[in-house]
Amino acid sequence: MRARDLAEPYTSIRSDADAVEAVRVLVARRLPGVLVVDPTGRPYAILPASDLVGMLVPGYVQEDPLLAEVIDESHADHLCRALKGRSVADCLPVGRPYLPTTGPDSTATEIAALMARVRTPLVAVVESGDACQDRLLGMVTATRLLQCLLEAT
Amino acid sequence: MRARDLAEPYTSIRSDADAVEAVRVLVARRLPGVLVVDPTGRPYAILPASDLVGMLVPGYVQEDPLLAEVIDESHADHLCRALKGRSVADCLPVGRPYLPTTGPDSTATEIAALMARVRTPLVAVVESGDACQDRLLGMVTATRLLQCLLEAT
Repeated sequence: MRARDLAEPYTSIRSDADAVEAVRVLVARRLPGVLVVDPTGRPYAILPASDLVGMLVPGYVQEDPLLAEVIDESHADHLCRALKGRSVADCLPVGRPYLPTTGPDSTATEIAALMARVRTPLVAVVESGDACQDRLLGMVTATRLLQCLLEAT
Repeated sequence: MRARDLAEPYTSIRSDADAVEAVRVLVARRLPGVLVVDPTGRPYAILPASDLVGMLVPGYVQEDPLLAEVIDESHADHLCRALKGRSVADCLPVGRPYLPTTGPDSTATEIAALMARVRTPLVAVVESGDACQDRLLGMVTATRLLQCLLEAT
């Protein structure tokens, strides 16, 4: 069982798309995160739903639970307005993006070790191409890996 | 919109259940993680699929990508054997479990701030009961929170 056999298609969004569109995609497909690709289609980050949620609340409110308490309900119900005019790229934390990748020939051990090391449930399977153009074969999720290993037991 | 309105049922497993059973539940429902409850039904941790994957590979292999490479494919395909005889509790990292919780009256702002602060996509909504018996009303996922906020916009 190699990475190329485990890779599955995964929902992606362009980094220059509207951040609200990313919310719509996550909600419509009930996904915990979306793959962000650059305008040339090259994958370069995962945007977890929790990071998008973090964009809705200013940092000083995140850090102070008492402050979050005093913001009234009618305001709280319109938090998505904070995303207006922002792109998907704007929602990626500075210092990341970080997308764990592996080659198509990696074994289940290599993928499992990578997931454990960087504590991620998602690994991109990328084939090196000509002229430094990497091609995305798909994503391996922790659940998919567990499924294949369970069937092999 | 309050936590009690956002809380949904979430798949759980007992801490004394077989770890392989946790894998089966995650795979069958395509979940990124499962809620762990103690034998009295009290919620106390989230077990992410990536932590279960981490249990399959010894620490020294996780830390050394070259070592992971030399483990052959036929061995790699039987990684799930590492879970034999282990319970769900055995798969929870030492030092955690940590389950972010909130009360039923929390607003969307409070939940969003909590998710952002502890970088979690899951918050348990717990009602304090008599004799220190907390009752789980359900879980709020980041995707569910985004969905409700999107509809309110």
